[in-house]
Amino acid sequence: MEKVCVLGAGSWGTALAMVLAENGYDTLLWTHRTDQAEEINSLHTNRKYLPETVLPENLYATSDIAEAVAHSETIVVAVPTKAIREVCEKMIATLDKKVLFVHVSKGIEPDTLKLISEILAESLPAEFIEEIVVLSGPSHAEEVVLHHPTTVTAACANIEAAEKVQDLFMNQFFRVYTNKDVLGVEIGGALKNVIALAAGISDGLNYGDNAKAALITRGLAEITRLGVKMGGNPFTFSGLTGMGDLIVTCTSVHSRNWRAGNLLGQGMKLQEVLDQMGMVVEGVRTTKAAYQLAEKHDVAMPITTALYSVLFSDIEPKVAVDALMMRMKKREIDDMIY
Amino acid sequence: MEKVCVLGAGSWGTALAMVLAENGYDTLLWTHRTDQAEEINSLHTNRKYLPETVLPENLYATSDIAEAVAHSETIVVAVPTKAIREVCEKMIATLDKKVLFVHVSKGIEPDTLKLISEILAESLPAEFIEEIVVLSGPSHAEEVVLHHPTTVTAACANIEAAEKVQDLFMNQFFRVYTNKDVLGVEIGGALKNVIALAAGISDGLNYGDNAKAALITRGLAEITRLGVKMGGNPFTFSGLTGMGDLIVTCTSVHSRNWRAGNLLGQGMKLQEVLDQMGMVVEGVRTTKAAYQLAEKHDVAMPITTALYSVLFSDIEPKVAVDALMMRMKKREIDDMIY
Repeated sequence: MEKVCVLGAGSWGTALAMVLAENGYDTLLWTHRTDQAEEINSLHTNRKYLPETVLPENLYATSDIAEAVAHSETIVVAVPTKAIREVCEKMIATLDKKVLFVHVSKGIEPDTLKLISEILAESLPAEFIEEIVVLSGPSHAEEVVLHHPTTVTAACANIEAAEKVQDLFMNQFFRVYTNKDVLGVEIGGALKNVIALAAGISDGLNYGDNAKAALITRGLAEITRLGVKMGGNPFTFSGLTGMGDLIVTCTSVHSRNWRAGNLLGQGMKLQEVLDQMGMVVEGVRTTKAAYQLAEKHDVAMPITTALYSVLFSDIEPKVAVDALMMRMKKREIDDMIY
Repeated sequence: MEKVCVLGAGSWGTALAMVLAENGYDTLLWTHRTDQAEEINSLHTNRKYLPETVLPENLYATSDIAEAVAHSETIVVAVPTKAIREVCEKMIATLDKKVLFVHVSKGIEPDTLKLISEILAESLPAEFIEEIVVLSGPSHAEEVVLHHPTTVTAACANIEAAEKVQDLFMNQFFRVYTNKDVLGVEIGGALKNVIALAAGISDGLNYGDNAKAALITRGLAEITRLGVKMGGNPFTFSGLTGMGDLIVTCTSVHSRNWRAGNLLGQGMKLQEVLDQMGMVVEGVRTTKAAYQLAEKHDVAMPITTALYSVLFSDIEPKVAVDALMMRMKKREIDDMIY
């Protein structure tokens, strides 16, 4: 019986731990908050993140990361991008055997422009890393815990490691594909938040379904252009972690990034939006990172550039979107690949 | 000054005629109904199809197809798939010079499994065909007439003909890309209705955003697989006429195909759905055609096949969707391309 742990008891980490426990694996869920661990162990709930859900009785939580690490042959890292390095530091102190790492975070590190798998690879001792696999796709945690059908992708250059993760998670409701293209999966997962902001702006301007579909489609085209230049496989971006996740993020009113964009489109300034939402809007930081990646790799990303000008140069959203529409006449496919 | 006509005064034909007239072209709109032509000429409205819209004063209508054809160097064919052959017959009688044909219909002819451009090419005398260009993309007519930003693709193997169509339609609100891949554009436009039905069923079963995003993504993957086998360019399917149009069709509650699927998902039988809707649901005929194309070209299309079994073999929607989820474990990209 495989022993696994999930680090991070937010909604997604908890939902994934629930899938693993339901699949019969000996699963430990780590949270840095003692009261949350106690709630999960005694009441089998995680009311802050999944208020409606009763967790399986065979899912245990701990607030001792050393216990979680010592327990596990596979470690699922489900903490926010900004906490990855800190959690790695904590793990190093107790790692003493080779472990399969799975990460499910979406983002790019500010300034270094590094992807999560790169941060993990440089922060953890190589002798303790069996492989690093990324698990990503269109997946609201709230639907996974209801056993609504969900599909995701497990990616690793070593396809056997991806298949091991597929075996761990796969069940009747949760379908896992494999892919070798880690970079493509991570770039798609991070940059979808940029396009979700732009789609929110378009909806805030009341520009309709045609404009939004165009933004999503051309947005994916520019993400693909960047990702391919960086070494990704173009087909990854047409898959679950590219197009699939982008659709969910851009068409759900629950998406934090879409909501922030929507308020910007209605005329609110960035700082007001952030104040009103009172939480991190990942797409704002990702827009800056994407803009910097586009410059670094010399790739045209007109939607990202337009959004950057709205967020950081105080350009009116309507002016930015209208300028996008007036760009030179283009051939669709040339523009998509190059 | 280019002289053009649009054949068919439904909502999309009327909206496109409006774009051409606003762009300054001498535009004639043909409808087989005399009273509709009179309404457009005297009141500048087309209340049946675009009840809120005032049409430009320089847009004229006629119910005499010979007048429309004689008037035009470019003819835009905007009639339903099933009326294409009949309209070609009517045109033949009066064609006496080379004309650029643009078609904007989406469908596959039952039994022959022919695409619209193929029907046009075999129904019209070759000596009168300058080129046949297909114009397609995510575009609700109701939004185009409001000058909401819209993007579409003009496709023709002869890219200069596609660029001529681009020049005719392009303006500040209506952005036209070009593409050489006619087959890819037409297959994407037709088969999106199959996936819209499936997405409607998923929503009718209350399966949520994850399942719907998976159906749209994997649906596009199987459309791409078929289209590539038939000779299309895989990147066309990631573009406006593939992914873009698919998103609009699957996420809009105004989509007739989505609504039909939604009723099926709620437990209604096909005949009841068709009776209740009281109009043609194009996706039902297209599902049969897509199923036949998949067999003919020996391509795996599991979503199309599942939908076919629901529509024509009385399989319960839930049983069909659950069977889809239980398919063998797959590699995402292998499965997408082959």
